[in-house]
Amino acid sequence: MGILVVGSLGLDTVETPFDRVEEALGGSATYISLAASYFSGPIHLIGVVGDDFPKKYVQLFEEHNVDLKGLQIVPDSKTFRWSGKYHYDLNTRDTLLTELNVFEAFNPVIPEERKKTRYVCLGNIDPTLQLRVLDQLDEPKFVVCDTMNYWIEGKKDELLKLLTRVHVLIINDSEARLLAQEPNLIKAAKKIKEFGVPNLIIKKGEHGALLFAEDVIFSAPAYPIELINDPTGAGDSFAGGFIGYLYRTQDTSPENIKRAVVYGSTMASFCCEQFSTKGLEDLSYLRIQDRFRDFLSIAHFDEKA
Amino acid sequence: MGILVVGSLGLDTVETPFDRVEEALGGSATYISLAASYFSGPIHLIGVVGDDFPKKYVQLFEEHNVDLKGLQIVPDSKTFRWSGKYHYDLNTRDTLLTELNVFEAFNPVIPEERKKTRYVCLGNIDPTLQLRVLDQLDEPKFVVCDTMNYWIEGKKDELLKLLTRVHVLIINDSEARLLAQEPNLIKAAKKIKEFGVPNLIIKKGEHGALLFAEDVIFSAPAYPIELINDPTGAGDSFAGGFIGYLYRTQDTSPENIKRAVVYGSTMASFCCEQFSTKGLEDLSYLRIQDRFRDFLSIAHFDEKA
Repeated sequence: MGILVVGSLGLDTVETPFDRVEEALGGSATYISLAASYFSGPIHLIGVVGDDFPKKYVQLFEEHNVDLKGLQIVPDSKTFRWSGKYHYDLNTRDTLLTELNVFEAFNPVIPEERKKTRYVCLGNIDPTLQLRVLDQLDEPKFVVCDTMNYWIEGKKDELLKLLTRVHVLIINDSEARLLAQEPNLIKAAKKIKEFGVPNLIIKKGEHGALLFAEDVIFSAPAYPIELINDPTGAGDSFAGGFIGYLYRTQDTSPENIKRAVVYGSTMASFCCEQFSTKGLEDLSYLRIQDRFRDFLSIAHFDEKA
Repeated sequence: MGILVVGSLGLDTVETPFDRVEEALGGSATYISLAASYFSGPIHLIGVVGDDFPKKYVQLFEEHNVDLKGLQIVPDSKTFRWSGKYHYDLNTRDTLLTELNVFEAFNPVIPEERKKTRYVCLGNIDPTLQLRVLDQLDEPKFVVCDTMNYWIEGKKDELLKLLTRVHVLIINDSEARLLAQEPNLIKAAKKIKEFGVPNLIIKKGEHGALLFAEDVIFSAPAYPIELINDPTGAGDSFAGGFIGYLYRTQDTSPENIKRAVVYGSTMASFCCEQFSTKGLEDLSYLRIQDRFRDFLSIAHFDEKA
């Protein structure tokens, strides 16, 4: 059956204090798909690009068992482009350019044979489109969804409607505060769960992530990375690792969702270590498991015997 | 033998979005002593107050098995006063007033019979004074020390000298970045340990704490508090719980230092729940252990069987 991934594909120009890359592979669906691909395939990618989308990137997806039947390639059109510059501490960035191009008129169409896919990851796109995807699906079992400040501010009604139809919302701490209109993160989380989403994950970058599941609060540590080269796509890689692990294990119990949060953090940590998607291109499940075990050791303490 | 605690005692006027208290008990030595008192006594407090220091506070210390032989009471003088106002999110505050009063000429004198005390907590005061305390002691086994931006900027040489003589430095994340002149927290921690301190704890407020011990990195979660009433003294309460637990267990192995970090976080969480020292006044070791177990549950995950 595989995992259905919907989101953006783009060409990113990114500048950090260390380096600069031009027109590198980017977009939420890209990072989600590559990260999820290490857990289990196939990944059914739903997205849109122009006919300028480099062949080598198509090849990269194919090498990672990503099925591109749902990828629309619009003739005589340009792929979505984004450009950003990270500040000194890599925690904040300025967007220098956003060219929507083909993405402006994106209407996700789920191929007939994929409508029964049970694990779904809705990357960060307009909540109206995220809802349109769900409308085409036949009873998905587990839907993970991401969003951002732009939609929280501009499309709140659609977003609230979406939250009653998904199983997990993954957002960062400032988005959680904005969505709940509440500065205390724990109160904010409670309020968001009352909107109707049973599981909420709040990503806190270098401070790890919090999971609010049924009656369970779980705090996952961040991986202590000394050299962050490029944080672009870290949140999407988190979502990919998260849903990838749940699909692989076919277990959505709270205890397993906790592990999935740590696998999500694991993929985010690999993503940050290199520019663009480089950190996600040559991994193996063994290396991923090794890093998961590093997380276990970082978080471990017990009661004195 | 007990624990030797050096630091400030003051009268705090604190305003938060919820309430305001005037001339309430405050100061680093106050919070450290009260927090540590639940683990084991006696606590030998070294500090200074004016003769305006309210009797009820002296009584409070005595009720908590805090020995005041090292407390200097300066006649015809006023106690240290501090006043601050917290912002909406309680993460930042403005200092409205600092009146050093008796604290300006403070010269810590260790009573002869306390010079052999083996567990020592140097609260946040001038590193010159912290060094002067160590000079009076006879081979302390385990010295914990706190500091702040003001000393990192103004007395860096003395602070670096101090770091070669203590066993644990407890600071917050912005202090760590400033001390190491390095924005990446993991790199900053490495650099600070190279200054000569074997254990470093970086407190991150609502994001928990990181421990860098010998070859061990440990990430402790924060307690999910919905109602923070007053964060004043949380860092000092952390230090008190930390050293209190180590003294109680007489075990400074890395595994036990991890537990001590969580007991420190436990005391900090109790401190924030009420104004001034109120959250530390009526606890019991059983309640503290219960909350330690909450931390265990929040941080727990495992590998799938």
